[in-house]
Amino acid sequence: MTESGNVPEQVVRRVPGSDETEEEIRRIIKICKTAKENGREIVAVQGLGFVGAINSAVIADVEKDGDPPYMVIGVDLPTIDSFWKIEMINHGVCPFKSEDPEVDDVFRRSVIERGTLLATWVDEVYRHADLVVVDINLDVEKTGIGEAAASSVNIEPFRKALTVLAENIKPEALVLVETTVPPGTLQNIAKPIFEEGFRRRGMDPGSNPPLLAHSYERVMPGKEYVSSIKRMRRTYSAVSDEAADRARDFLSNLVDTENYPLWRLDKPNASELAKILENSYRAMNIAFIHEWTKLAEDMGVNLFSIIDSIRVRKGTHDNIMYPGFGVGGYCLTKDPLLAQWSSREIFGRDDMLDFSVMAVDVNDLMPGHTFDLLVKGLGGDLSGKRIAVLGASYRKDVDDTRNSPTILLHDLIRERGGEVAIHDPYATEMQQREDIAVHSDIDEVLSGSDSVIFVVNHNFYCGMDMDFLIDRVGSGCVIVDAFNILDDRKITFLKRNGMVVYGVGKGHIKNL
Amino acid sequence: MTESGNVPEQVVRRVPGSDETEEEIRRIIKICKTAKENGREIVAVQGLGFVGAINSAVIADVEKDGDPPYMVIGVDLPTIDSFWKIEMINHGVCPFKSEDPEVDDVFRRSVIERGTLLATWVDEVYRHADLVVVDINLDVEKTGIGEAAASSVNIEPFRKALTVLAENIKPEALVLVETTVPPGTLQNIAKPIFEEGFRRRGMDPGSNPPLLAHSYERVMPGKEYVSSIKRMRRTYSAVSDEAADRARDFLSNLVDTENYPLWRLDKPNASELAKILENSYRAMNIAFIHEWTKLAEDMGVNLFSIIDSIRVRKGTHDNIMYPGFGVGGYCLTKDPLLAQWSSREIFGRDDMLDFSVMAVDVNDLMPGHTFDLLVKGLGGDLSGKRIAVLGASYRKDVDDTRNSPTILLHDLIRERGGEVAIHDPYATEMQQREDIAVHSDIDEVLSGSDSVIFVVNHNFYCGMDMDFLIDRVGSGCVIVDAFNILDDRKITFLKRNGMVVYGVGKGHIKNL
Repeated sequence: MTESGNVPEQVVRRVPGSDETEEEIRRIIKICKTAKENGREIVAVQGLGFVGAINSAVIADVEKDGDPPYMVIGVDLPTIDSFWKIEMINHGVCPFKSEDPEVDDVFRRSVIERGTLLATWVDEVYRHADLVVVDINLDVEKTGIGEAAASSVNIEPFRKALTVLAENIKPEALVLVETTVPPGTLQNIAKPIFEEGFRRRGMDPGSNPPLLAHSYERVMPGKEYVSSIKRMRRTYSAVSDEAADRARDFLSNLVDTENYPLWRLDKPNASELAKILENSYRAMNIAFIHEWTKLAEDMGVNLFSIIDSIRVRKGTHDNIMYPGFGVGGYCLTKDPLLAQWSSREIFGRDDMLDFSVMAVDVNDLMPGHTFDLLVKGLGGDLSGKRIAVLGASYRKDVDDTRNSPTILLHDLIRERGGEVAIHDPYATEMQQREDIAVHSDIDEVLSGSDSVIFVVNHNFYCGMDMDFLIDRVGSGCVIVDAFNILDDRKITFLKRNGMVVYGVGKGHIKNL
Repeated sequence: MTESGNVPEQVVRRVPGSDETEEEIRRIIKICKTAKENGREIVAVQGLGFVGAINSAVIADVEKDGDPPYMVIGVDLPTIDSFWKIEMINHGVCPFKSEDPEVDDVFRRSVIERGTLLATWVDEVYRHADLVVVDINLDVEKTGIGEAAASSVNIEPFRKALTVLAENIKPEALVLVETTVPPGTLQNIAKPIFEEGFRRRGMDPGSNPPLLAHSYERVMPGKEYVSSIKRMRRTYSAVSDEAADRARDFLSNLVDTENYPLWRLDKPNASELAKILENSYRAMNIAFIHEWTKLAEDMGVNLFSIIDSIRVRKGTHDNIMYPGFGVGGYCLTKDPLLAQWSSREIFGRDDMLDFSVMAVDVNDLMPGHTFDLLVKGLGGDLSGKRIAVLGASYRKDVDDTRNSPTILLHDLIRERGGEVAIHDPYATEMQQREDIAVHSDIDEVLSGSDSVIFVVNHNFYCGMDMDFLIDRVGSGCVIVDAFNILDDRKITFLKRNGMVVYGVGKGHIKNL
């Protein structure tokens, strides 16, 4: 949620007044009426976070037979943390910074030119919606780093959001849940909520069965932000054939299904599990390589070149992961734990998902290894040392700092008395941690550092001139390459110029 | 080591007499002399097991400028367990059954037509060899199933075999180790053995550095037995540039390098680690899916169709593994433990390779889950029940039963008082377990069974007619599909005909 930089001047953090809310309800009623007269379906998108915001705009940008079939109304809460997003969208601007040039276009076109997108905070919209897309967050609460087995899912906000829908939607409206949920959620949590809501409104859920569907998104930050909706395979399922067919028709308008065909699974449990398994598989493969990373270092070999040699086996070994600094973002850090929670709380199982839960711990703790290399390089004493950390976001060439592994590295250094200066060419702040500053002036961050740690493979760092680096730091500076940012030529050059170099997975450095 | 079936009548299990040995030494000296006069290099292949046997024949089959550059002499021990292989090869017959039609050709051509291959038991051959290919086994000793962390490597036979080489080879001979070894073996175990051997023979290892190279094979049983040598990517490395260049030249003659280029790594530690990591990656991914298999069953979903939906993500998710019955064979069941042993014994590390070691345990214990489904199906009581187990080998359409997971299933059933009849269309015996019979008459095995368990996806089982099955077993027979051998149509048919059906990873069966 980087709101700086491209915020229109009119938008400030505030909450709407009650008079505004009354006015807004009238506005929404009028807009929905007009949209229906124009033959458009009303699509409400619940939640305007990283997924919901771009999703709203892409849906509003859909064209069918030369005409927009959908009037999209994004909904978020009238809180200090969320209301600004509503106002930004209504100004035709995406609330999140992105490297993707398509983003500005879809927002401008939808909001300003075509008038098929607006955002609001009033639940009134759900009473008119033909389709509600659920894009709200569902969070895992960890008790601490390395304690994944003790984590739990904060399901209440999600239940509340669904209850609002159950109290308002037309019974024939389709509810398409895109949120990553604990497997079993649609059948065991959502369906009872809707049935109960319908009953309270005097409707018989037997003759008005709620139309619930599930289709997980794979939205990725960065240069492919729009593509990650339009040009990505989508799996879906629903509680009934009718709901599944409706979901299919909607997704077919949204996704380039000619090149990225839809995949239907037979029940929500299946597609919910698919999303979680998909991400757990990645999380586990990242964690797996970490134990080999440390072994390779102790054996004096370069694990990156070893993995290159293994990846040539197409089809069976070509996606074995490389070593790295750590895992961040919203998905891999929590999704395996959604399964574990579901297994225990929804299906009453005792079995632990050992590999999956262990993967979260290994990944969460991974920056500790880079820290160990730093400590080794500095001879054990960090007090008063100036450490430059290059990279705040968790992924190449994006500004997304959600659950960034840089946070743990920062905390470990500070704990041992070191001073940390974090640089990032994209991110300007560390989400969830206002106390951690992120600088954009590389010169300032490097100058006089006792150690420089490369943690993200931003192009900015991969292309950095080594003379530039050497000129700013003192002789004997400890350089740690945590993400294969420096090639052997650069490492050799640094060593020849008096630097001490370590690298994650790079045991061969001592012989360079 | 299935020696039945294609053994020429002349070959019986015996050991050679001492007079034969003296005669053999003279024969080898003469053959080597002639080969050299004909301009051929002498290649000794140490170990005529599953890899060494086929490797010898493929090397002997090499042609360069219309001529065979190599005279190959395979060497194994004059023991009751190995001597028959020597005799079979000398009859121009592969000692191992194979579905690969190329196998008969390469043996016949090399031994009978071109005279470029023979086998022997005398060490004399090493004194003449220009190149020694080491294809002997190196085994892990497990203390019990599920106790991988306590395993150790039986390194002594391997050390002894290398010592024989060190005592005999010409100093300028290249020793190419293809055995899967604990990483660090060439540098830390083999090199000292050769240096010591050279010293004892009065040579200075400083001026005669042993030429040791490492290149791991990826020989697979089955229809691609020859292809798995000739048409497979090969990674190699050596203790010196000279040895690496020699290894490259040799492998270039052997492998179709135009389509499968060689990959050079900078030191033996690296290529040794590559092989182990490659297999540990597979073992771990198989084990990982097992915890999801049980979850999927309890959630009532079909994990196979879920994984199909995930695998469409090419490049990132297309090799996530399917659920299964268990893991057998020679590699995946032990290779992760070679790394763990090396980590502790060669590099003195305390860190456990947690994921990798746990993977071996999960995989070794996996057949226990199929057993649990069987017990559930039979209502808990197995005593006196007749259980047909379909599949003895560990892999589709091969006869290889090394470390077959069927063994554990057999033992578990017997322990609980059940009777087991094992069928296999290819394998005729269970290796390492002479007490376990393997039958080839499907009619006999099925007739009167209280339960039928499909454990290997041999085409023979995938194509089985369900009427045939039903006709042979009683109503209420418990059918367990442990490897996705029965599709939903067949399962529905079986259920309609009074069978009770369970399936590994197939929670949806109860609703069919």
